[in-house]
Amino acid sequence: MIRNRQILLASRPQGEAGLDNFSLVEQDLPGPEELAEGQVLVRNHFLSLDPYMRGRMNDSKSYAAPQPLGAVMLGGTAGEVIASRNPAFQAGDSVVGMGGWQEHFVVDASQRGVLNKVDTRHIPLSAYLGAVGMPGVTAWYGLTQIIRPKAGETVVVSAASGAVGSVVGQLAKARGARAVGLAGGAEKCRYVVEELGFDACIDYRQHPDLASLSQALKAACPDGIDGHFENVGGLILDAVLLRANAFSRVAMCGMISGYNGEPIPLQYPQLILTNRMKVEGFIVSEHMELWPEALKELGGLVATGRLKFRESVAQGLEAAPEAFLGLLKGRNFGKQLVKLV
Amino acid sequence: MIRNRQILLASRPQGEAGLDNFSLVEQDLPGPEELAEGQVLVRNHFLSLDPYMRGRMNDSKSYAAPQPLGAVMLGGTAGEVIASRNPAFQAGDSVVGMGGWQEHFVVDASQRGVLNKVDTRHIPLSAYLGAVGMPGVTAWYGLTQIIRPKAGETVVVSAASGAVGSVVGQLAKARGARAVGLAGGAEKCRYVVEELGFDACIDYRQHPDLASLSQALKAACPDGIDGHFENVGGLILDAVLLRANAFSRVAMCGMISGYNGEPIPLQYPQLILTNRMKVEGFIVSEHMELWPEALKELGGLVATGRLKFRESVAQGLEAAPEAFLGLLKGRNFGKQLVKLV
Repeated sequence: MIRNRQILLASRPQGEAGLDNFSLVEQDLPGPEELAEGQVLVRNHFLSLDPYMRGRMNDSKSYAAPQPLGAVMLGGTAGEVIASRNPAFQAGDSVVGMGGWQEHFVVDASQRGVLNKVDTRHIPLSAYLGAVGMPGVTAWYGLTQIIRPKAGETVVVSAASGAVGSVVGQLAKARGARAVGLAGGAEKCRYVVEELGFDACIDYRQHPDLASLSQALKAACPDGIDGHFENVGGLILDAVLLRANAFSRVAMCGMISGYNGEPIPLQYPQLILTNRMKVEGFIVSEHMELWPEALKELGGLVATGRLKFRESVAQGLEAAPEAFLGLLKGRNFGKQLVKLV
Repeated sequence: MIRNRQILLASRPQGEAGLDNFSLVEQDLPGPEELAEGQVLVRNHFLSLDPYMRGRMNDSKSYAAPQPLGAVMLGGTAGEVIASRNPAFQAGDSVVGMGGWQEHFVVDASQRGVLNKVDTRHIPLSAYLGAVGMPGVTAWYGLTQIIRPKAGETVVVSAASGAVGSVVGQLAKARGARAVGLAGGAEKCRYVVEELGFDACIDYRQHPDLASLSQALKAACPDGIDGHFENVGGLILDAVLLRANAFSRVAMCGMISGYNGEPIPLQYPQLILTNRMKVEGFIVSEHMELWPEALKELGGLVATGRLKFRESVAQGLEAAPEAFLGLLKGRNFGKQLVKLV
């Protein structure tokens, strides 16, 4: 047996989430000698923290079943096989899976996709939770399957310095489009333009009302907006619609501005009609058939240094709740991880 | 020369449109003997009145250039060739075109599509302004190109007794879908179900708030909503989104509830994301390549009595403004026409 520390969902947030919604517990896990046929024991090196987790803390109807109360927080992990009774894995393998917020987990790895071996020779392990993982594929899907930018078009993305947004803009640039980001604060905006290569980035904190934000978008997008990748919603989506071109496309990926239950009405839905727009929501886990193609492009770009990313790394399992709450407030810079080893 | 009576846009509405926004004038038109090479003189038998005309009375940015002030009101017409100096037309031909709100017009018919001959042996002339014209093709496009219903799915349409909505539901039924209408008043709802064959119709006037309308939709759509054809917007769109299924599609065709400038915010845009919906605006005149296919189906259905429609017919050019204002308030029943002959 081995001792395993976990973080559970202790209670559902009323409005904003807080530290008291989580609890840290210890449990006993089967040790290497106690594994059943097909099982693998994994030590998590990194936990992925992602905005979608906030939605699952609520008890309301959403695309996925709510996170169960009293159960370990769900989430992607990257780690190392400690012991295996599965012929496809052996001790020392680098793997990614849905290990949750805990230090170890045991999984029956017989079912395809539950645990995936990854190659860390050219790509760092943590990147498989970011640019070469779910966030990267999310960016790839929304950009290439919904926005489908043509060279010369303008693509806007909110939360542009984050794990998803940073990839959206770089992929758009690689396709010859103009990439314009929205991010919170001058430092993030500088990073988005100078490091990631976006054409412009708007600090939305400097534009707290619709008229001001819309004006900033007009300046940054002199030819209007042809594609928009939405991670935030609310005021940002309103402002984008006011600058949207005919036949523009909006990929709806996240609406973090409403995750605490705040009303986030869309002020001018009639623009979808007058601009003959297409607005489409998606969840990347429902399009698994495209992951191999996406991961091939993303992995190649990361391995050759053409796709850049940044990570915020919290240290130790007990730091996960605080880091997660920070992510919801935009305190992270790039992909938010928790390092356990 | 012949005397021609016309209705002009005299002023732009401030809020609700009124009779004083129109003026009736007389002008001289070239007579049969004065036509230039290629020109055709047409006597309009029917004017088409359509909600889109209200949008063009405003001076604001929209998909089409605003209707010019002081010019004849634009619109579709069906009539008879009085004289022709164009080899493709001869006196007595039944034709449809964009003749506008007037009794006669002269047009250079050399350009393809400006004037079209129609066959009135099996289809009445007026139907070419309705079920076998622009409104019918609008219904066909939104249903078959955006909603794409599968057999057994549920399709909802607002303004269900109108020229567009009535066709949407009947085409949905023909494809094996459940058709649910929204209309104003018990008489229209009875017509939609008993005459047009919809499965259900909700009198939205009985449900003035979101909770009530959403509840009525739940009762009429026990398996949720897979496709929605929107002619109205506002409260109706909000209520539909609350009952929308995963992967549902919304064809945005009109938002008549906001044509006078009232705010019509969409209360829960996050449902587009959580339900992975596709919301798409369109204008049928931008898809001319599909009109032949659509008209073939619609014409066949009307000629064989399988596609039913109803008309509200105002008599005489001077009745057009009043009839148009009534259309905007839902006082029409089916396709609103003005009969001139």
